[in-house]
Amino acid sequence: MASKKGKKGLNTEESSSKFEGTFYPQRVVLDTSLFVNPDVRRSFADTPTEALEAFLFLAAQIHILEFYMPPSIFEELLHFVEEDKIPEDLLLVLHQKPPKKHELKCPAFLLYELIEDIRERVNKGLRIAEKAVRSVVEKGPDDVIQELRRKYREALREGIIDSKEDVDLLLLAMELDALLVTADQGLIKWAEKLGIKWLFPEKFKDYLLVAIKRSGLLTGKIK
Amino acid sequence: MASKKGKKGLNTEESSSKFEGTFYPQRVVLDTSLFVNPDVRRSFADTPTEALEAFLFLAAQIHILEFYMPPSIFEELLHFVEEDKIPEDLLLVLHQKPPKKHELKCPAFLLYELIEDIRERVNKGLRIAEKAVRSVVEKGPDDVIQELRRKYREALREGIIDSKEDVDLLLLAMELDALLVTADQGLIKWAEKLGIKWLFPEKFKDYLLVAIKRSGLLTGKIK
Repeated sequence: MASKKGKKGLNTEESSSKFEGTFYPQRVVLDTSLFVNPDVRRSFADTPTEALEAFLFLAAQIHILEFYMPPSIFEELLHFVEEDKIPEDLLLVLHQKPPKKHELKCPAFLLYELIEDIRERVNKGLRIAEKAVRSVVEKGPDDVIQELRRKYREALREGIIDSKEDVDLLLLAMELDALLVTADQGLIKWAEKLGIKWLFPEKFKDYLLVAIKRSGLLTGKIK
Repeated sequence: MASKKGKKGLNTEESSSKFEGTFYPQRVVLDTSLFVNPDVRRSFADTPTEALEAFLFLAAQIHILEFYMPPSIFEELLHFVEEDKIPEDLLLVLHQKPPKKHELKCPAFLLYELIEDIRERVNKGLRIAEKAVRSVVEKGPDDVIQELRRKYREALREGIIDSKEDVDLLLLAMELDALLVTADQGLIKWAEKLGIKWLFPEKFKDYLLVAIKRSGLLTGKIK
């Protein structure tokens, strides 16, 4: 089967990561959690800034992968890193691209899953609030409110896509037929539903190291 | 332009409501609210059962419209009507059809709107719960909980599609390129976003009466 670009410039499955005359690199979409979440960035470095630097150092040696981040996610990342310390490589190595949200379509049955999920969470939120009200008599309002906030957020936010930034990541990965690298369980759950490739973030550094090795081999071949 | 069926048996815009040799009736998707909501059903009759009967009596005389209801919505309706009083015409006049939820696609930008909407509502829900906790000292938990339930449901449910049944209605109308008749503001809002034709339920009886008139005229022409 010949490699070809899909309609509207989107890559079809055939066009990525195959090597037939023209070479199409595998695209990789990165979430901030890679650099911000302490457990996840540990394999790179201790601080977000150093982790981003370490990633850029490795990524610059890789010719078989293309790295992307939606601008909304990049903006989040900037809150955590010291911008003046980031090498300018960044501009070339990490592409900032928003998804084509007015062209992309998603399967309608996902609406059912999203709505059912939300419905259950909303009911749970009410039960949590009711319990809180009942417990005021014993504990006093301040303690109760603190606990209420934690439990409510846990019930209504965790494991769900709940922000524009999350949707950006999913749609961009879908559009580019890319590998999504994130530590967010909600995103991974949705990547599964949408047929998006995803990688455990703990494996990301190994993935880059193998890609560096293969980049050398492939460059040899191309020459 | 020749009338033709769209891919996968979905009607394209050209194929519905035009009269060129073969006649394609306009499809109409009905929500239970038409028969159940007292303000809305008034134009038909006093009780849900009588309203459904009155609708069937009119609909049976109309040849230029086809009436549909998703099975999930029909099941809801059955909770409100006396089943043994409904004429058997129903089976022929009101088609029960679920949407093809695994074939249909929806525009991805709607995900952003849904997620943003939910996010705002969830935050509002928490603020309502916090206020409730603070007010327990003055009002006592029972009164507070009653108010909490009302306000919470209002904030998190009203004007949003929040059930599988709502999604069924929207997708079926989308699939059939049908007119959606509902009193639900959340559904109307989403019909607007999805480009689905919709009708104020207060106008529905008039719509049927005009259709009866035109059915006569058209039948005359066809003969």
